[in-house]
Amino acid sequence: MVYDSLTGNVERMARAVAEGAAEAGAEVDVVRVDEVDVDRVPEYDGYAFGSPTHCGTMSVKMNRFFNERLIKYWGKLRYKVAVAFTSSGGLGGGNEMTLWSLISAIINYGMMTFGVPDYVAPGVTLHYGAVAIGAPSEAALEACKLLGRRLVEHVTVVKRGLRAVAES
Amino acid sequence: MVYDSLTGNVERMARAVAEGAAEAGAEVDVVRVDEVDVDRVPEYDGYAFGSPTHCGTMSVKMNRFFNERLIKYWGKLRYKVAVAFTSSGGLGGGNEMTLWSLISAIINYGMMTFGVPDYVAPGVTLHYGAVAIGAPSEAALEACKLLGRRLVEHVTVVKRGLRAVAES
Amino acid sequence: MVYDSLTGNVERMARAVAEGAAEAGAEVDVVRVDEVDVDRVPEYDGYAFGSPTHCGTMSVKMNRFFNERLIKYWGKLRYKVAVAFTSSGGLGGGNEMTLWSLISAIINYGMMTFGVPDYVAPGVTLHYGAVAIGAPSEAALEACKLLGRRLVEHVTVVKRGLRAVAES
Amino acid sequence: MVYDSLTGNVERMARAVAEGAAEAGAEVDVVRVDEVDVDRVPEYDGYAFGSPTHCGTMSVKMNRFFNERLIKYWGKLRYKVAVAFTSSGGLGGGNEMTLWSLISAIINYGMMTFGVPDYVAPGVTLHYGAVAIGAPSEAALEACKLLGRRLVEHVTVVKRGLRAVAES
Repeated sequence: MVYDSLTGNVERMARAVAEGAAEAGAEVDVVRVDEVDVDRVPEYDGYAFGSPTHCGTMSVKMNRFFNERLIKYWGKLRYKVAVAFTSSGGLGGGNEMTLWSLISAIINYGMMTFGVPDYVAPGVTLHYGAVAIGAPSEAALEACKLLGRRLVEHVTVVKRGLRAVAES
Repeated sequence: MVYDSLTGNVERMARAVAEGAAEAGAEVDVVRVDEVDVDRVPEYDGYAFGSPTHCGTMSVKMNRFFNERLIKYWGKLRYKVAVAFTSSGGLGGGNEMTLWSLISAIINYGMMTFGVPDYVAPGVTLHYGAVAIGAPSEAALEACKLLGRRLVEHVTVVKRGLRAVAES
Repeated sequence: MVYDSLTGNVERMARAVAEGAAEAGAEVDVVRVDEVDVDRVPEYDGYAFGSPTHCGTMSVKMNRFFNERLIKYWGKLRYKVAVAFTSSGGLGGGNEMTLWSLISAIINYGMMTFGVPDYVAPGVTLHYGAVAIGAPSEAALEACKLLGRRLVEHVTVVKRGLRAVAES
Repeated sequence: MVYDSLTGNVERMARAVAEGAAEAGAEVDVVRVDEVDVDRVPEYDGYAFGSPTHCGTMSVKMNRFFNERLIKYWGKLRYKVAVAFTSSGGLGGGNEMTLWSLISAIINYGMMTFGVPDYVAPGVTLHYGAVAIGAPSEAALEACKLLGRRLVEHVTVVKRGLRAVAES
């Protein structure tokens, strides 16, 4: 779990994603983007990347993480599974644009990703990752938890599959 | 104003955009996409395109409008100003992805577009066009009205500018 | 493999993707979008979706495939792995925008996807799927073949993983 | 004209955009993003933003420009007209994704933008802005020049329109 948070909203989301992932049986580290040891990134099987919505794209710190700090592992994270989450100031304020900027980086690195069609409450879903408007509502935190669970489910399948292929 | 609506939500948004445009002094026609006479499209100075959010993109009818029916005017709508609006089933359910599919078509045709940074209510804005979650809330309808007003303001500037350039 | 092709360019790409997939050991069906039996779609483990670039988005037929014909399986294709390819009239003419429209549908359905960082020739890669400018060049066809191989590799891992999880 | 360039490719593109803009009669300043005096940005009527394609998005310096340095003018650049250009390492390597990240910022700020349907050579266009694969080819530089000309044409119309509206 790598995230950037200016106001604490994305941090709360990160903790909810981690909670969902832990419930699904995973060991989870929640690390602020400033404090990531990039050389430990390849040790993990999956990632959830969170960013505030800044001008309809990821924050400078997240951008620097992908474009500079992690760049030596570009193309070397095959079969890692990653998802995204964000909080924006308003509905219609670029939250999905920001998810797409994170998904674009995930795909660019050669990682895997997936969508979540499920609704967590009437009118609240997470097709492209979890979103919140400002401080995350209960429903938004539910979306984060589900995102964490789904991430672990997908990571588990891929990890078991990699082991099975290696053994065959 | 060209729109497609399955459930009536986008239709209500279309009427609010039209209301905002009329308040700003424009003559407005609200036309369901099925009923558009494409040969009359070039007569207008600006457009607001509305679509339900279907699988994170515009509806089949809107897609056919841009990719087939209007295609003879592709590249011939320079200096027309256009914006987008949509209603999705849920927050995080692809509304901005759908706005982007409409904006992508607008730009592909060579038209102009613009964003609206203003907030119409706490936590509700329309940076890339107006969005609603299901049936449009009061705030979503305010966003539509503002979108209509801003469209007319931008169209007015471009139209006056074209006249001034032609006269010089 | 589901594709739409107006001029035959995307069809040639589809055959190259299929060739790569077959070399990697998969059984492959190449089916024009008109002729897809949607009730057989869930039987497959992976998909490559190809579309011409029309106004910076997928074609009407591909749009109808996702938004109408396949819709009863929306949200029911979890753990399917899918990728995209397209041919556009020109460099800078919307090919990646079209890939994104396909990737957006893939994610919206809840499927998995991945990127391919590899270069197949100097200045030719397939980060978001294979692209061609007009008739596919040798390098573009190489990109298609690699996309097919990588798809089978990812599908194999996921399929083995699903079996291992089911057996445990 | 604000740009970032690591290898000089985007810098060459910036000079071609400026050449096209100057031919169309505009006074142009070509400024590396590091050296922009942000308080002078509002004095200009139009902008062309150039960035290398880094992980399918704009560079860190361009991201910091929009998200931090220029942020005090966010929402205050209404009626400014802006376009984008980029060079990527490969075809299919994220150049349009990067254009979109720049267009997304332009729209988010509330500025105007537009597309260019014209082809500058067989198989080379600039629907969403000018793109080059590595070092810009002759055709890519032509696309840049045309982008500069079109920018000036659109800026001229908007500027004249603003004056006419103010005088009426």
